[in-house]
Amino acid sequence: MDLNKIVSPTLLLNKNICLNNIRLMSEKAKADKVIFRPHFKTHQSIIIGNWFRKSGVQKITVSSLRMAEYFAKENWKDITVAFPVNIREIDLINELAEEIQLNLTIENIEAVEYLNKNLKFPVKFFIKIDTGYHRTGIEVSNFKLIDHILAICKNSTKLHFAGFLSHFGNTYHAENKDKINQIYSESINDLNILKNNYITDYPDLILSIGDTPSCSIINNFSGTDEIRPGNFVFYDLMQLFLGSCNFDKIAVCMTCPIVAIHPDRNELIIYGGAIHFSKEYLTVSDTKIAGQVVFLNEKGWIKPAKDYYLTKLSQEHGTITANKDLIKSVKIGDLIGIIPVHSCLTANLMRRYFTTDNEWIDHF
Amino acid sequence: MDLNKIVSPTLLLNKNICLNNIRLMSEKAKADKVIFRPHFKTHQSIIIGNWFRKSGVQKITVSSLRMAEYFAKENWKDITVAFPVNIREIDLINELAEEIQLNLTIENIEAVEYLNKNLKFPVKFFIKIDTGYHRTGIEVSNFKLIDHILAICKNSTKLHFAGFLSHFGNTYHAENKDKINQIYSESINDLNILKNNYITDYPDLILSIGDTPSCSIINNFSGTDEIRPGNFVFYDLMQLFLGSCNFDKIAVCMTCPIVAIHPDRNELIIYGGAIHFSKEYLTVSDTKIAGQVVFLNEKGWIKPAKDYYLTKLSQEHGTITANKDLIKSVKIGDLIGIIPVHSCLTANLMRRYFTTDNEWIDHF
Repeated sequence: MDLNKIVSPTLLLNKNICLNNIRLMSEKAKADKVIFRPHFKTHQSIIIGNWFRKSGVQKITVSSLRMAEYFAKENWKDITVAFPVNIREIDLINELAEEIQLNLTIENIEAVEYLNKNLKFPVKFFIKIDTGYHRTGIEVSNFKLIDHILAICKNSTKLHFAGFLSHFGNTYHAENKDKINQIYSESINDLNILKNNYITDYPDLILSIGDTPSCSIINNFSGTDEIRPGNFVFYDLMQLFLGSCNFDKIAVCMTCPIVAIHPDRNELIIYGGAIHFSKEYLTVSDTKIAGQVVFLNEKGWIKPAKDYYLTKLSQEHGTITANKDLIKSVKIGDLIGIIPVHSCLTANLMRRYFTTDNEWIDHF
Repeated sequence: MDLNKIVSPTLLLNKNICLNNIRLMSEKAKADKVIFRPHFKTHQSIIIGNWFRKSGVQKITVSSLRMAEYFAKENWKDITVAFPVNIREIDLINELAEEIQLNLTIENIEAVEYLNKNLKFPVKFFIKIDTGYHRTGIEVSNFKLIDHILAICKNSTKLHFAGFLSHFGNTYHAENKDKINQIYSESINDLNILKNNYITDYPDLILSIGDTPSCSIINNFSGTDEIRPGNFVFYDLMQLFLGSCNFDKIAVCMTCPIVAIHPDRNELIIYGGAIHFSKEYLTVSDTKIAGQVVFLNEKGWIKPAKDYYLTKLSQEHGTITANKDLIKSVKIGDLIGIIPVHSCLTANLMRRYFTTDNEWIDHF
């Protein structure tokens, strides 16, 4: 990696680690005979998308219709938008539905009635189920509302029921791996009660699930039909602390120039702030952190013997809480590496990647 | 304002409010005979920049060299980069220094020595002074380091000392307006001690200050020579709670489609998340909020009789904590307005504006 090419905050990507993350999740899905429909909202990249394609992936997930449009143009033909359908975007829905197998996410009567009236081309739809995260979705026991939605689509030539989709986002609040296992098992059980109830009328219905913590930690995917993890492609500090990955699986790292050194209070100021990292913080031993310091070398990055954190962010400034050793080892103009707390949000802000093989890679 | 044109999360801009904010700050600066060098990092817009130009502004502030480049191309000829100089960007520094009056910010020996060796064209520089915020800058009493920097530039034909620059960012942590007044007065006093010490050798040196809270609240700018506020162009919820503005001066508002309604727990789910608002939160009565709900109409937005807040954000979802009245008054597909906590970060993510006069406006 030619660090001389880097003059301002840059998101580094280790392609080998990334390819390995893709391979491992892909093999795990194959071994358990579940459909692997990775979520592309983390990387949002045509080139990285093609790495998935090479590993056999043909179906993908995105978080917005515009992101679906971006990937549809690159010949992705089967795309699920894992976000409650936004009826104001009906024109884009129809454009995409004409071109590709578009799969929408429905969780209320208003949206399904609107689609029933306004769709010009067929789509599949998932019913979004809430198994305990309580962000959104239909309560897993609310058969009445599910029946109502299905009744509206019963004779539709445009709306085809694909199954139940859920995001076990409550795994992000789990204290340990046992708790993640427990959330996963209970949610899968609940979804299978639903599946058993509707499978006779809809023999092709599937269960689609997919948060990175459970997809990374669970040993086998029995009880589901499709997984949609996204963050695992890069992982990050949040996933490390959740136990979804070890340090060696983190594929992205910010690199930032050091612009000021304050030995009196053991702080380094980097060019790298909220417009580069986002303002996602983690709490580690009562300290709010926005990233963890790594040292850069020609191959990528390595973890120092001691842990140092990025602890404050303003628009373009970041503050690293250092000690005398770290202060002594750096100088103005050096680059320092920072593992981001949340790779999805950092990538979304940085909008391109620089690989450890010196290639620039696109982002939506 | 034609709300039918809005199908996805959109940053609304009320041009009249914005022009009025520009006019008021501009008049205040004129009345006190200080240079008005607005910070463009908040709006980052060519068109909004031209609104400033029409009010007589010729000198501007930016937070990065790339932002300086963006505005230099639009014929801004005197630009201060209010960020510690990043020596890795020396090529861009030289390109800009050839074209415009570039003013850099220096706070250490390493940067000034590097510039002294590598500058090809003249620049002015400010010495960054820390009057109590303790993010970065040279301690206001550190004459030794200031002398050292000035000694290096003494015979330079490229590095011309412009004065002392400070950002009283500690006003953002002030409990009330009195505290903001106090921070301002003490900081100005300290800076004037510096000024008096160097004015004989550098008769043209100026003091440049400029956070939005103090520039908005202070009644007169005696004791300074230049102000660089930025956020006041839009204001936001953070400034409202600090007392920098009233509600009627906030010039931007996010508008987001409602995609799910959960009457059982009084929550609305909007299409609008961390990639639209950023993850800047404020704490109001022990509740973390990411925005405040307003109602939209053809003229803009109005505050409801009761306060409702955006309380949770994930990548694309936002959760509004509502009550029965609000739940009853909206339906799926409606647009709802949200005043953002931090307009700079929201604008940086949204990357364009839709005015209440139905015009799209650029963002860097």
